[in-house]
Order: sequence, then structure tokens, then C-alpha cells
Amino acid sequence: LDERDQTALDDLLEPLHGADIADILEQISSAERGTLIALWSGHIDGEILSELDESLREEVLDALPAEDVAEAVRELDTDDVVDLIENLDDDDQAVAIMGALNEADRFAVERALSYPEYSAGRLMQREVVVAPSFWTVGQAIDFLRTAEELPEQFYHVILIDPRMRPVGHVTLGKILSTSRDTPLSEIEEESFRTFDATDSETEVAYAFNQYHLISAAVVDEDDRLLGVITIDDAIRILDEEAEEDILRLAGVDAEESISNRTLGVVRRRFPWLFVNLITAILASIVISQFEGIITEIVALAVLMPIIASMGGNAGTQSLTVAVRALATRDLTGANVWRVIRREVIAGGINGMIFAALMAAVGVIWFGSPMLGVVIAVAMVINLVVAGLAGVGIPVVLEKAGIDPALASGAFVTTVTDVVGFFAFLGLAALWLI
Amino acid sequence: LDERDQTALDDLLEPLHGADIADILEQISSAERGTLIALWSGHIDGEILSELDESLREEVLDALPAEDVAEAVRELDTDDVVDLIENLDDDDQAVAIMGALNEADRFAVERALSYPEYSAGRLMQREVVVAPSFWTVGQAIDFLRTAEELPEQFYHVILIDPRMRPVGHVTLGKILSTSRDTPLSEIEEESFRTFDATDSETEVAYAFNQYHLISAAVVDEDDRLLGVITIDDAIRILDEEAEEDILRLAGVDAEESISNRTLGVVRRRFPWLFVNLITAILASIVISQFEGIITEIVALAVLMPIIASMGGNAGTQSLTVAVRALATRDLTGANVWRVIRREVIAGGINGMIFAALMAAVGVIWFGSPMLGVVIAVAMVINLVVAGLAGVGIPVVLEKAGIDPALASGAFVTTVTDVVGFFAFLGLAALWLI
Repeated sequence: LDERDQTALDDLLEPLHGADIADILEQISSAERGTLIALWSGHIDGEILSELDESLREEVLDALPAEDVAEAVRELDTDDVVDLIENLDDDDQAVAIMGALNEADRFAVERALSYPEYSAGRLMQREVVVAPSFWTVGQAIDFLRTAEELPEQFYHVILIDPRMRPVGHVTLGKILSTSRDTPLSEIEEESFRTFDATDSETEVAYAFNQYHLISAAVVDEDDRLLGVITIDDAIRILDEEAEEDILRLAGVDAEESISNRTLGVVRRRFPWLFVNLITAILASIVISQFEGIITEIVALAVLMPIIASMGGNAGTQSLTVAVRALATRDLTGANVWRVIRREVIAGGINGMIFAALMAAVGVIWFGSPMLGVVIAVAMVINLVVAGLAGVGIPVVLEKAGIDPALASGAFVTTVTDVVGFFAFLGLAALWLI
Repeated sequence: LDERDQTALDDLLEPLHGADIADILEQISSAERGTLIALWSGHIDGEILSELDESLREEVLDALPAEDVAEAVRELDTDDVVDLIENLDDDDQAVAIMGALNEADRFAVERALSYPEYSAGRLMQREVVVAPSFWTVGQAIDFLRTAEELPEQFYHVILIDPRMRPVGHVTLGKILSTSRDTPLSEIEEESFRTFDATDSETEVAYAFNQYHLISAAVVDEDDRLLGVITIDDAIRILDEEAEEDILRLAGVDAEESISNRTLGVVRRRFPWLFVNLITAILASIVISQFEGIITEIVALAVLMPIIASMGGNAGTQSLTVAVRALATRDLTGANVWRVIRREVIAGGINGMIFAALMAAVGVIWFGSPMLGVVIAVAMVINLVVAGLAGVGIPVVLEKAGIDPALASGAFVTTVTDVVGFFAFLGLAALWLI
């Protein structure tokens, strides 16, 4: 690229899948991206655009000639166009994209955009394959052979009634393996289910994963067919949600990506660090209540981070398991008390093991059996509280309608820090003087 | 269930999907599971068994009559049988399951089990739909209509040469929408790719996600067709891997699930807590070098957890972003230096903002401007180090062939704790006396 060798670049990119080209664009620097786009004789097609990280799409769209954008957009299914437009901050680009669409697609995209963000209506594509439910296999095949515009990928023929309401669906495999005179209604799949356009994408992704769906119809408030959602959309959502949980548990903004610029990273990380500062100051206030005894027994200052750190870690363990179980709906009202009891007991048992270890450390290092007892008791208390808070806090947040992954970390470590310092220093004040 | 009301139970479970029944079994207690299985007049079919959490399968298999197990197993595709058997510790159960299979399936399962764990060979199912590459659409349709045993779900017809080597594939949609005399080779998909049976499942799942595959052929060392992997297997692997990363980042054993018993939880959490104890003691040793100054200025003991906590959090943020970017292959040799530079600069900027805030806290709370300066400088140092360690450590571990999610957390927080305490207390010793 540095040598501006067009032939070499073409040879390199030619055999690659759009997703891989998008990855390359994401990994090079902004200046290199400009050079690559200008130099490459192939063009950035619709597929590359949809695979590209959202934070880079505007930059790449800006670098492209208008006719390339128009052509790229026309190749896409309407759901991908919706995905493209909804993530653009730049209105001019959105208008240009809409202008490139034919009337039917533009209408479908506008309609999809009228549904709330993160809804099934935004995920679906307009391109569907339908057949009246009274048709036979032969009629369906003849229809498909003569149909002008079929979606690039489809897995089911959706059966509709005269009012365009989907009543079932048939897999292509069944159509191909059944004799021509069989009515379609006889080979319907049991697994048929539809989504409302207003259902949340989380709902949709959960159902695809839980019931191993490949595609599903989306209907409007009158149960009329609007479009279909396919497995690739569901995978994208599942992926995004797992990613969100991972990042949020670590206090990283869920929108952050590896291609963000430095200042974006600073801005996205700041809020959580600020929350952490507040909670850390809270813990410091607890410590400051015991300044007197720390001056007398400086070993307390040496050992207290251990108690806090163990509590924080045990709390994070319980928390992570609970947040994921909530996300995958494995933790429900039916088993929440059993899980909380389990975590508390597990915390108690591990607490006792580490209490023994730490008591030994206290005795050997500082030669004070009583200090050992204080550490041991504080350790058990803190690990039990860690188990309780680790499960209890996300469950309460979920009930309150707050994403448990988002806020639990700060709460749980605050609880374990405060309880840990208070138990350790408080017991020291009681027993060591 | 408590009232042993069979009719009510049947009414409740009858309309449910196998995956939902498996979820119910996971959420009730062990005693309730026994009652449910004995009471329910429906039977635990193959689908429920495969959906069930691995830790519960043996228990449920034990509770089932042998003929129910045999029947359940015969309903499954071979890949699901493999999944069932490879997770059983109980050899008798495995033998019983193998005994229930017909010869061809048993051979396929044994063959799959001969491939290493976590390989494509374990994921694939034997049930495939193939056609010679010289056939026409019409021949393929006629063959499918008369074929006796087709897989329950299939999305492609795989084209093979006379030596059973897959040379391409055709989507069912294309077959249905093309005239009967078109040769299959003319409507092949560009996206065709095969996997070796020894490829890792991570490799396979990545390709399914990256290239939006629906199914892909698996071949042996002579490139002969062995089976296919379908999207539902790939989703399961993607799911498991995201889950593993989440759990490992929090120091939880990747095999842990919400249905584990208490002692299992204790055992699975212990190792990480132990590692954490060692690293916490390391941090304590750093603190103990500064006992003298802490006795003189007890404010240091009050404030030092703030420095460590901010460093730990900032480090975890960088770490999580880096571990995920490595997992999704967005962080590679091409951009690693750019990302490290970005994290270090971002750490420095956030460090300066929080340095100013903390300096103010130091001055207001303890009335010592010099203490404010010490905190400020220590904060900047620690957040810069957090950014560096947060990206650098997982990258180095990945290069060394260690799962970065597994070990990075302990390393990163050790680094930020040790550096944080050392910088804060060391600077205090230099400047405050």
C-alpha cells in the first residue's frame, strides 16, 4: 500500500470475501484507508459496507464517489440498508442512500425505520417468498421458477391466507422431497412462529437461539405479513448482546470498538472510572474512621487490600455467573432462591478455606495470633456478602428494568469494599486493643 | 408438581418446545426433576436431552427407562449423539446409547469420536444430501423426491465428483427457482468452502460467522466428504466461546453453569481466588516496605485503595476490549501497535483528569497540597500502566498460545496494584518527608 502498487493490491484483495476486506479496512489507519479506497480498482460493494464497523462507515462513505454508493446500496437487502442508515449521523449520506433505492425498497426502508430502534421491524427484510396456503408443491415450484425477484437467500416459503396473514411455513427441503400434487399445508413445519414488528430484537434473537429457527415471518398489528428475519440477523444480535454484556461487566461502553479513536475511548471509559472513583472514595471514608488503630497497628494497612481484593473477586465471580444466567434466561423466579443460597454457602466455604490460609499468613508474617483471627473472620464475612451481593444485586436491577450487566459491577465492588474494610478494621478495633 | 397432578403437568408441558422443557428441568431442584420425569406421561425425547445442560444429562438419563433412552437417541442426528456421548462420564450410559443406534449411525458416531475433541469432525453430522456435479436440476429434484432418508433440516445439495470429493454446493432456493434442464454446476454458490475434520471448532465457528454460512461440508485427509456442519452447531460454538470469555475474564471456570451444585461451585471458583490471594499478598508486600511512612501519614492508608482500584478498573477496561478484539480477530499484528498507543494515551488523558480530581480531594480532605501532587502523579502513572498492561499482556499471552481471557485478569490487576501502591507510597516517601 505504501508503494501504491495497484496490481499487487488488486491481486491481494480480489479473492477475499467482503467480510475480510471490511476487516482489513478496520485494521489499517485512517490515512491508509483513504489510500486503499482510491487505489483499489475493485469497488467497495454493499456487502463490504454492511460488514464494516459502524464507526467507520461514514468515513468510508465520504471517501466513495456517489455512484459507487448508489450501486452498493442497491445490491443490499432492505434490512441491511436499514442497518446502514440507522447508524449514520450524517443526514446527507442517509438522503443519498435513500435516493439510490427503487421505490418499493425505499418504501420498505422508510417503513422499517418507522419502527422503534432495536425492534423486529428494523431487523426484517422486505424480500419474502410467499404462497397461498391452498397451493400444491407443484404450483409452488412453478411459481418459484418464473418469479422475477427472489431474495438472495431464503429457507422457507411462507404460507399466507387471502388477507396476507402468514399461517405457516414450509422448508425448501420438504418442497423438494415431496411429490408435486401434495398440498403445501400438509408439509408445514411445526416450528412456525411469527414476530410482531414491535417485538424487541432481544426477544427475537432469544427465540432464534432457543428454538433453532432459520427464518421467521414478521407481522403488523393486523397480523399481516411485513417481512422476514433470517438467521444471520439473529446471530448478529446474539453476538452484539454477548459482546455488550462482556464490555459492560468490565465498565466499557457497549458501543466501543477497536477502531475507535483515542478521544472516543477516553470519553467512553470516563463515566465508569468516575463511578469507580466515587465508590472508592466511599471505601476510603470507611478506612478513615479507623485511622487511630491503623497508626497503632500498621499491619492492618498492609493486609487490608487483601480482604477487599478477595471480596471483590469473589463478588465478580458470582456477579458474572448471575448476569449471564439472567441474559440466557437460566436464572428465573423458579430458581433464584436456590442460586442465592448456593452462592452464599459457596462463599462461606471458600471464605473458611481462605480464612485459614490468611490466618496462617497473619501469624507467620506479623506474629500475632489475634490478627490472624481478625483476618479470618473478616474474610468469611466478606466472601459470604460477596456471594449474596453478586447474585442479589443483578437480580434486583433486572427486576427494576435496568440492564444488570451495566450497573452491577460498581454496586458489588462497593459493597465488598465497604463491608471488607469495615469488618476487618472494625474487628481489629474491637479485638486488638 | 407438588400435588402430583399428572393432567395439569401434561397440559402445561404438552405445548412446549423441547428447549423450554429442558430449561424447566434445569431450573427445578433435583428431587423435583425426579418427580417430573416419573409423573409426566410425555417422554423425554432426544431433543430435550440435547438441549439439557451437560451437568444434568447423566442424572436425567439415569432416571429414564432404557427403552426411552434408546428411542430418544434414535431420533437424533449423529452430531447430537456425539455431543451427548462425549459429555458422559458414565461409560455404561455411553454403551447403552451406542447400542441403541443402527449400524450406519453407530459407525458414524464412532468415527466422529475418533477425531479430537473440539474439532470439526466432532461437530459434523453424517446425514448429508449429495448429487453428482454433472446432474441437472431435474435429476436432483427427482432424486430428492424418491430419497428414503433425508436429514430433518438441510439447506444445500453438495456436489461431488466420482471420488466423493465435494466440489461445490447449490442452495435449495436456486434449485427451486431454476428450470429442470439447468446443470447443477451452473448454479453453484460462490461461497462454497469445506473444512477438514481436524479443523478446530473455533476455526469453523469463526468462518460461519464471518462468511454467513448456513452449512458447510467436512472432508477427510483425502478430501472425501464425511458430513456437514450446520449453522445451529456453529451458533452453539459461538455462544459457548463468548460465554467462556465472559466467565474466564471474571475468573470463573468456563464449564460452570447455573445448575452446578454448591460444592462444584466452590471447587471451580477456588483456583482463581487462590491466584488472586497470591497476587494480593504481592501487593501487600509492596505496602509493607512503606510501613514507616504510613505510620507517620495515615492519610496514605486511607487513600491508597483509590489508586489501586482506579488502576485495576482502567486495566480491566483495556483488557476486556483487547481480549474480545483478539477473539473476534479484530486485533492483529497489523494494528496492535496502534491500539497499544491508543490505550496508553487514553489512559494518560483519563489519568490526568482523575489526577486533578483526586488532587482536589487530597487537598480538601487532608489539607495537604503536596499529598495532592503525590496522588495526582501516582494516578497518571497507574492509568498509563493500566492501558499498557491491559493490551500488552493479552497480546503476549495469545502469542504464547495461552487463552488471553484465562490468565490476563490476574496479571493485569497484579501489575496495576503493585505499580499503583509503589508509585503512590514511593512518591510519598520521597516528597512528603
